[in-house]
Amino acid sequence: MLARGAIALVLGLVAAACDGGRSSQNEAGPKPGASAPARGEPSEVSVDDSEPEPEPAPKVDPRGRRWGIVIHGGAGTINPDKLSPEREAEYRAKLRESVDAGYAVLADGGSSLDAVQASILILEDSPLFNAGKGAVFTHDGTNEMDASVMNGQTGQAGAVAGITTIKNPILAARAVMEHSPHVMLAGPGAEQFCRTQGLQEVPPEYFHTERRKKALDRIRARETTELDHGSGDDDSKDEGGKPPDGKFGTVGAVAVDQRGHVAAGTSTGGMTNKRWGRIGDSPVIGAGTFADDDSCAVSATGHGEFFIREAAAHSVCARMQFGKQSLTEAAHAVVFEQLEPIGGSGGVIAITASGERATPFNTPGMYRAHKMSDGTTGVAIWKSDHPREQASETP
Amino acid sequence: MLARGAIALVLGLVAAACDGGRSSQNEAGPKPGASAPARGEPSEVSVDDSEPEPEPAPKVDPRGRRWGIVIHGGAGTINPDKLSPEREAEYRAKLRESVDAGYAVLADGGSSLDAVQASILILEDSPLFNAGKGAVFTHDGTNEMDASVMNGQTGQAGAVAGITTIKNPILAARAVMEHSPHVMLAGPGAEQFCRTQGLQEVPPEYFHTERRKKALDRIRARETTELDHGSGDDDSKDEGGKPPDGKFGTVGAVAVDQRGHVAAGTSTGGMTNKRWGRIGDSPVIGAGTFADDDSCAVSATGHGEFFIREAAAHSVCARMQFGKQSLTEAAHAVVFEQLEPIGGSGGVIAITASGERATPFNTPGMYRAHKMSDGTTGVAIWKSDHPREQASETP
Repeated sequence: MLARGAIALVLGLVAAACDGGRSSQNEAGPKPGASAPARGEPSEVSVDDSEPEPEPAPKVDPRGRRWGIVIHGGAGTINPDKLSPEREAEYRAKLRESVDAGYAVLADGGSSLDAVQASILILEDSPLFNAGKGAVFTHDGTNEMDASVMNGQTGQAGAVAGITTIKNPILAARAVMEHSPHVMLAGPGAEQFCRTQGLQEVPPEYFHTERRKKALDRIRARETTELDHGSGDDDSKDEGGKPPDGKFGTVGAVAVDQRGHVAAGTSTGGMTNKRWGRIGDSPVIGAGTFADDDSCAVSATGHGEFFIREAAAHSVCARMQFGKQSLTEAAHAVVFEQLEPIGGSGGVIAITASGERATPFNTPGMYRAHKMSDGTTGVAIWKSDHPREQASETP
Repeated sequence: MLARGAIALVLGLVAAACDGGRSSQNEAGPKPGASAPARGEPSEVSVDDSEPEPEPAPKVDPRGRRWGIVIHGGAGTINPDKLSPEREAEYRAKLRESVDAGYAVLADGGSSLDAVQASILILEDSPLFNAGKGAVFTHDGTNEMDASVMNGQTGQAGAVAGITTIKNPILAARAVMEHSPHVMLAGPGAEQFCRTQGLQEVPPEYFHTERRKKALDRIRARETTELDHGSGDDDSKDEGGKPPDGKFGTVGAVAVDQRGHVAAGTSTGGMTNKRWGRIGDSPVIGAGTFADDDSCAVSATGHGEFFIREAAAHSVCARMQFGKQSLTEAAHAVVFEQLEPIGGSGGVIAITASGERATPFNTPGMYRAHKMSDGTTGVAIWKSDHPREQASETP
């Protein structure tokens, strides 16, 4: 992370030019003596409402690295018998559309941050996934969304929790990262900030989908009638034959761009029937999202409480950085040795600056897709999907 | 962390006995095949409103370990010239009272979790520190508090963010950990949960102190008149000769008990003039607080955004667990190699299961104290305090 000092210098100057340096997370600036950034090192401070600087992207990476993107649409007790072929095709098509959108950004020389955002926007706008439109309902019958994003080049991060009227929570998280001095904003205050950023607002009804409302009704009914058997983990029952993404669910993306910078983002409606202002792992930097060029970018999905307790996303990075583990070793250890023994169901997607990727999960399924510059691509739901692909992912 | 599987088994059974197993964070339970817990392994699930089970504590630790507690009352641009001898004596006396209270719990055979709580309660109830009574004001003139706690034996954790009417936020965090299925609750929902737990409520005015109100007025006036120079880091100015704990400030404690179990807790009013529902590092498990018997317990204080971005508390543990660093190496690396280069001012306190401790900080001062079973004890504010002590802490 030491290398970030130099990058922060550039960022600090760019931010100072933009807004007097007051709104940057790097406001204190790097210490004197930080070395100058490499020539051509991009700043990646993008200001949405200004014209982007034209910046030629290398057509072929000079160091021969792969670049690409991995996405997820949630992990859970997905059961092949309960997912109709038509609905499965819908999921696969939307995952393909999402991964293609992120890849297009990368292929065009765009940043990993922009790629992650492009992929997540498509998943947020689809009612199939528990994020943005399609978010599950809280105990009180509302939709409260969380999101976070992290830039592995700069170490900057942004997150929102409990927002109800911003159409795309991932844009809110990015605005917090780039246009506030803070990392995490919550509730009405977060929405107030989003309004200052001109983010698109929608009436709360935009997020109401019949399918998610029925899921809440079923769970609430069960809560009343089956108090003693509510394990909270038997999500397939909740769906009653409907597309079975259950009480949990999240979308996320990790990418590495042509310059070798990684980024991660995660967005969710949280847990069906959640109450008390519950915040899961998705907006918690270190739990649901983490990114560091020196190790990897991670987005998690699963039973958030366990992911927070294990600092899951940061653990993948820390195992690589401090323990010199490979990406595969690190990601698998977090999912199978840290989370699974304490009952933490779910998975992570992760990618390194050199284009290695891992997608371990300890649930029957995880909606996921990837597309890499070496031509590797795939969309998968079940453990048995793409056995060859799985084998390469999980040696 | 694998050893937690066995502990979780006991906890799961205890929780099941208490409430049908529905409210435990370990609700999904350990996987079959988890080994049985060691005989006499304490469960440490305490239910506040029931009679505690009598549990004989070893008078002398059979493995010859030290036990004890370390506390902090915030780090910042504390300036010896600006702190009157009378006020300094007040701070030192309150730090002593706090560390003595936590130590007394440990000496009596109590858990590290109870010791951490006892120490933090005293700091929260004192107007000297930015937590509980004495919390700083938000931009809107309210007091919004955050707290978190983590049990290093079980890996359970609890946190609250943005609460305004609960007298002791650390009790709220503990209630979330022990009596909800969640880790993190925020805002009005968190307060609603606290009411179900019978936690003491106070009118918001309880938290209004004249000194903190004046600090807000000064910062808001400066914000209007000195927009271009608001670095946000020049806290000494804000205090105008008053006790200079500045815009930031936090209290926290880490302890190891006679059974070798660690715990950590952190509580704060956040940042003076904060807005938009800003959440700092204190309630973020992995950033402001982390505890794991296999590495250490950590509580952080400083410019929270940087601590979140570096997953500061978890990084100390991860460096030990995955990188095999010593406590001193790990804690110093986080403060001086991760936080300082990006402008993250502050410090951490940390303790291991065998009673090693570290209190590195990169600010001029950090309010802190420790008391250990080997007779070592001290109260300190400045870097120059207890040079011998500092030397042993910072080789």
